[in-house]
Amino acid sequence: MMRTRPLKVALLGCGVVGSEVARIMTTHADDLAARIGAPVELAGVAVRRPSKVREGIDPALVTTDATALVKRGDIDVVVEVIGGIEPARTLITTAFEHGASVVSANKALLAQDGAALHAVAEEHNKDLYYEAAVAGAIPLIRPLRESLAGDKVNRVLGIVNGTTNFILDKMDSTGAGYQEALDEATALGYAEADPTADVEGFDAAAKAAILAGIAFHTRVRLDDVYREGMTEVTAADFASAKEMGCTIKLLAICERAEDGQSVTARVHPAMIPLSHPLASVRGAYNAVFVESDASGQLMFYGPGAGGSPTASAVLGDLVAVCRNRLSGATGPGESAYAALPVSPMGDVVTRYHISLDVADKPGVLAQVATVFAEHGVSIDTVRQQGKDGEASLVVVTHCASDAALGGTVEALRKLDTVRGVASIMRVEGE
Amino acid sequence: MMRTRPLKVALLGCGVVGSEVARIMTTHADDLAARIGAPVELAGVAVRRPSKVREGIDPALVTTDATALVKRGDIDVVVEVIGGIEPARTLITTAFEHGASVVSANKALLAQDGAALHAVAEEHNKDLYYEAAVAGAIPLIRPLRESLAGDKVNRVLGIVNGTTNFILDKMDSTGAGYQEALDEATALGYAEADPTADVEGFDAAAKAAILAGIAFHTRVRLDDVYREGMTEVTAADFASAKEMGCTIKLLAICERAEDGQSVTARVHPAMIPLSHPLASVRGAYNAVFVESDASGQLMFYGPGAGGSPTASAVLGDLVAVCRNRLSGATGPGESAYAALPVSPMGDVVTRYHISLDVADKPGVLAQVATVFAEHGVSIDTVRQQGKDGEASLVVVTHCASDAALGGTVEALRKLDTVRGVASIMRVEGE
Repeated sequence: MMRTRPLKVALLGCGVVGSEVARIMTTHADDLAARIGAPVELAGVAVRRPSKVREGIDPALVTTDATALVKRGDIDVVVEVIGGIEPARTLITTAFEHGASVVSANKALLAQDGAALHAVAEEHNKDLYYEAAVAGAIPLIRPLRESLAGDKVNRVLGIVNGTTNFILDKMDSTGAGYQEALDEATALGYAEADPTADVEGFDAAAKAAILAGIAFHTRVRLDDVYREGMTEVTAADFASAKEMGCTIKLLAICERAEDGQSVTARVHPAMIPLSHPLASVRGAYNAVFVESDASGQLMFYGPGAGGSPTASAVLGDLVAVCRNRLSGATGPGESAYAALPVSPMGDVVTRYHISLDVADKPGVLAQVATVFAEHGVSIDTVRQQGKDGEASLVVVTHCASDAALGGTVEALRKLDTVRGVASIMRVEGE
Repeated sequence: MMRTRPLKVALLGCGVVGSEVARIMTTHADDLAARIGAPVELAGVAVRRPSKVREGIDPALVTTDATALVKRGDIDVVVEVIGGIEPARTLITTAFEHGASVVSANKALLAQDGAALHAVAEEHNKDLYYEAAVAGAIPLIRPLRESLAGDKVNRVLGIVNGTTNFILDKMDSTGAGYQEALDEATALGYAEADPTADVEGFDAAAKAAILAGIAFHTRVRLDDVYREGMTEVTAADFASAKEMGCTIKLLAICERAEDGQSVTARVHPAMIPLSHPLASVRGAYNAVFVESDASGQLMFYGPGAGGSPTASAVLGDLVAVCRNRLSGATGPGESAYAALPVSPMGDVVTRYHISLDVADKPGVLAQVATVFAEHGVSIDTVRQQGKDGEASLVVVTHCASDAALGGTVEALRKLDTVRGVASIMRVEGE
């Protein structure tokens, strides 16, 4: 049965994503009404530059006073697509206080203040949905917090930043260096003028915090996420990866410790085997691999950014929140009951690929192997290559803690026969 | 806030899936209670053979009287994992009438009677959830009917049967024939003693009907789904596919017509390019590729069958239905408002790979090409190979309707110079 009074939506932000949300709300109005059970109406659009012409949006709806818009009291759902911490945080909080539910695409805010925002939403018995905050259109938040709600997730391994995946894929397929690949990404619009948030892993770290929190029913703050960018990855690293049957991806990795009593979250470049489904994720695509007790291995793949895909995720949430509103219910809120401690990076256990420049003389391998043994790091394979009196030693370890590996590398650097540590890279996905 | 009165669950069926559902309900009871907001309790288990020892299940809960169990009146959720049409249909209907919501893994029943069951559920204001009915643990129903509820899905292309994917993957990687690969699948437990439902595409067709219905907000009955099995696929077909840079998969394909005014659903073997993400889905895994207006291309990948993965999907639904129950709401029901006509197979437009055995003499190609032209089927490439006075002609067409292709083949068979049509295979995913 169709209700005739429309649900009112306030849109905060009308850039690439916001304008697409508005466009789809207009062009697909009949479908949205049928799927929700009531029409939805754009009741206001808060922007910074009101004079800009916005095709398809009634100028009478446009305002620069976002605060007044969220305080109106007749708004059912506020869609926040302005990004950043403030004024988004205050506007969302104000929206809850004035009776609206919220759909947000704001990963930075959710990663930093998700718990506080969920608390305000719950206090006012409202929904806070944010599928668009992680991996664009790929349904990930909903599958993790609903489809897998009866399962125990042990690991989330994801390519959650399209810019860096484009750059690494380019380096892999053409042999280009980092700067050359970045320049191409910038020219094609895949990288921003200041690519820091992407290439230094800040964007992926925010997504890792959100994913870990949902997967493990535990609060994981942005500060809890270990973060290493991918600007140091070289063509030589790709060559090493190829020799191992691997490629290199910037991964967001959220893991439950083997004893189940703690979790970790980290972002760094890593080698993964070519046979792993994540290895074949090309260009600016995203994909997230989820391992859980009962369901085994699942993967979710799709465009991780862009106006239309992000708008699709926002609108899926909008439909869900509107349905909840009509039935007088709210969807699942924050689930942090497990409250597991988040362990530091030193506790993370994984494998490592280490390239050393060493003196080309007898006994060096024995010295190096002794250092690994003394730190309890077991060696899987060693490959030695001589070149002009110098030699390189490539060591791949068995699983070891990051702390043990760190101690090993520190000790290796002190050896006279070790001229330098050319690279250290983690090996994942095996 | 935790409610202390437990929600009561009745389990119909305690085979591979049911026993795993019961096990997880027991071992993960605390997690389920925390995620739902109330404890869940196994209140009864209906089985056929009560004397069988079932580890971890209180014998006092076991009954052979499923009807009495669903009529008890104190049951909150009935989990139906017995499969087949009857008695499942009557039991589910009775459950709704006696106040329970239902979680089902029954693809055959949902494909055949989904609309009627949804109607009874709605009449009694109860939930009917069935994530486990399609592609095991892979979240697919929920993403399609919730995450993509604000988008317009145009195509669903899926590997939704693990048995046939195992067989085809084996044929592809080893060059084995169909029978040899089937024998191995049977020996390893991937194929049942009577593999008809899998290899003839009945199982995939049921899933296609369910997926098409949800994707297009339109009722699609099992009878609406064109179905062709994969028992005729030969090693020669794989060789042809390889020459085209393709492999062969049994695909379930649900499409919206280009004008948006009708839909089609079909299951058949098809060539797909090796570069397509579905091409690298190995073994008994499932994957579903979804194309929509705003989100572009998404893929969902994971184990498509098995006790634990299916139980994971059932339990995710159980949590959702229990949450709905506590909040006094129901989740999204059937959405068939679009009511688009389902077109027959003849209207499907795709590309074709046709191998003809022809006489090795001048003019044959001209004759064949004329037949294609007369039927309005445009040729993309032709390859001619001579062998001992005979020749083979491999034609790959541009897009054409199935009806036009059928007419073409009929006419080709009548040509004196065409000795036989060795194979016809559709080419998808381009």
